Amino acid sequence: MTHIRLTPLAQSLPATVPFVGPETQERSRGRPFAARLGANENVFGPSPRAIAAMAETGHWMYGDPESHTLRMALAAHHGTTPDHIIVGEGIDGLLGYLVRLFVGPGDAVVTSDGAYPTFNYHVAGYGGTLHKVPYVDDHEDPATLFAKAAEVDAKLVYLANPDNPMGSWHTGADLAAAMASLPEGTLLVLDEAYVDTAPDGTALRLPLDDPRIIRFRTFSKAYGMAGARVGYGMGHPDLISAFHKVRNHFGMNRAAQAGAEAALADQSYLSQVLEKIAHSQNQIAQIAIDNGLSPLPSAANFVTIDCGADGAFAKAVLDELVARGIFVRMPFVAPQNRCIRISCGTPSDLAAFAAALPGALEAAKKG
Amino acid sequence: MTHIRLTPLAQSLPATVPFVGPETQERSRGRPFAARLGANENVFGPSPRAIAAMAETGHWMYGDPESHTLRMALAAHHGTTPDHIIVGEGIDGLLGYLVRLFVGPGDAVVTSDGAYPTFNYHVAGYGGTLHKVPYVDDHEDPATLFAKAAEVDAKLVYLANPDNPMGSWHTGADLAAAMASLPEGTLLVLDEAYVDTAPDGTALRLPLDDPRIIRFRTFSKAYGMAGARVGYGMGHPDLISAFHKVRNHFGMNRAAQAGAEAALADQSYLSQVLEKIAHSQNQIAQIAIDNGLSPLPSAANFVTIDCGADGAFAKAVLDELVARGIFVRMPFVAPQNRCIRISCGTPSDLAAFAAALPGALEAAKKG
Repeated sequence: MTHIRLTPLAQSLPATVPFVGPETQERSRGRPFAARLGANENVFGPSPRAIAAMAETGHWMYGDPESHTLRMALAAHHGTTPDHIIVGEGIDGLLGYLVRLFVGPGDAVVTSDGAYPTFNYHVAGYGGTLHKVPYVDDHEDPATLFAKAAEVDAKLVYLANPDNPMGSWHTGADLAAAMASLPEGTLLVLDEAYVDTAPDGTALRLPLDDPRIIRFRTFSKAYGMAGARVGYGMGHPDLISAFHKVRNHFGMNRAAQAGAEAALADQSYLSQVLEKIAHSQNQIAQIAIDNGLSPLPSAANFVTIDCGADGAFAKAVLDELVARGIFVRMPFVAPQNRCIRISCGTPSDLAAFAAALPGALEAAKKG
Repeated sequence: MTHIRLTPLAQSLPATVPFVGPETQERSRGRPFAARLGANENVFGPSPRAIAAMAETGHWMYGDPESHTLRMALAAHHGTTPDHIIVGEGIDGLLGYLVRLFVGPGDAVVTSDGAYPTFNYHVAGYGGTLHKVPYVDDHEDPATLFAKAAEVDAKLVYLANPDNPMGSWHTGADLAAAMASLPEGTLLVLDEAYVDTAPDGTALRLPLDDPRIIRFRTFSKAYGMAGARVGYGMGHPDLISAFHKVRNHFGMNRAAQAGAEAALADQSYLSQVLEKIAHSQNQIAQIAIDNGLSPLPSAANFVTIDCGADGAFAKAVLDELVARGIFVRMPFVAPQNRCIRISCGTPSDLAAFAAALPGALEAAKKG
């Protein structure tokens, strides 16, 4: 293998994946899941207008590398300019570019222990040093995060609001107030993937061009287009323009861009979906209660359920659910790993979950 | 901007783009192009089965991060195993991952002066030192490339076969023979994006798992799915598995994966498209001859036309074509920049080109 000379950094990286996909699990199970409730997808799907826009796209043409019309529409939606917006291949892709721009070997980055693993994957991938702070009362905690950032001179500090996997959230006003303690030299990476399903006032209440922050949004959650891979970042134009130095300029799927634009324009469909998600949240919570478990309050398109014991027990419940054809996931880290996380589903998805849960709990208790 | 602390490398990078998209040009022109013949897209589009597969996809689900069924189908198509195949967001995306895996600051990389600029963009983006060798008789020249690679101890050497922008090619047997002079420690990055339109025997005649080579293919050209962003690499499993350390695991558009699989399965449609492309090549060549210009032989889905003078003249011809609503591009570097490059088009596209060319030439001669 003398021709395969990876960089020392690439050589050192593990061949791990942040998440094992449900298709991989189905292949090892030998049969499909009855309900797909593990990836916080939106089973209600995108606006019919978005589906039509994607179908009508001329697939033979490369997408516009500037995502111009989508950025124009997003700028109008958010009351800003296209220069404040970068569109990319999902938030995952944009987080990769951001980390690449900021983090070299040994650079410090701060996140919460148990927060989004794909961010951590990118930090490791560029040789950064990741510092983790604990959740506070099942919340990612700005004060703890920013104090650690000051201590280690972090270039980036990651915060998801609402949080995944716990579904907890801060108000945008509280978060804005907490920003007073963000240290000089640290950029807040604010992941607002789930903000569309959150109570009004959850989005950060600060100007979009505040140079201390980049905030990310997505069409994968409330807009129901996870398969399309469309995310965007909003921030100061000096920061946004840096993405153009490293991004895959022709990386955006043309149909996906058209679909996102159509989805954004159909806010009445979004409202309907948000109602379905809220209804589904209530159903999941009720199923949990019916089984003697404790649903946590959620601002996201999932409900995290406290199984009432330790991580081993919750893992056993999860495994028993998976064995019964219900794809779900759970937090990675104690004490949050006392929970399982159920994405909102259709009534029939949730009926399958409700049917499987008692047996799964019984088996987990015996195990 | 004290919160925006880019890495020294990111700071040093220019905010250039490898290509300006036709949409950008249309916006600055204030009107659309009459014919889109500049990006080597395939105007004949994908198989109807691929279009249907994309339309039928559940967009709400993330794509399979392993692209398992597509990799299985590609493995069967190429007579290899899925472990020899990496699927990614176009060859552009995969080139980015490859360069990231191999190239750190100061590492040497070799390419031809005037070859694919997006590869160069990635090398610069990771701090590599790019060494360029001239074309030989309008061909990327393996002997020259490999000699330079030996001289500078290159980690990567890039070669497109067929070549873009000249349309020239080597036989797979000649290339295999030339491999004897590939130095130890250098990986050949063989871009076979245009091999599907090339004469039989153009694909490299060496085992797919030869550890000295990675070869790239795409659904953007002959398969007519540039907007979908599906490329793949083939190589030794030890090399292929390295991609999993750095790639955006959930980066693939789900519909695009389904579309690529359907397109691959419809080889009879591909054959029909290849006939249309061949016919279009002949038409472009004839239009060139009718205008006193010299079409170069082409193995790709475009024809490069020698305008018979220097780069300034060819640029004037190109500008005049663009002004007349014909989107075309041209080589960047002398002496190849004596040419303009015309992608295959529909009969009406080429009629528009034929109508515009005499006036464009006349204006360029006057200019």
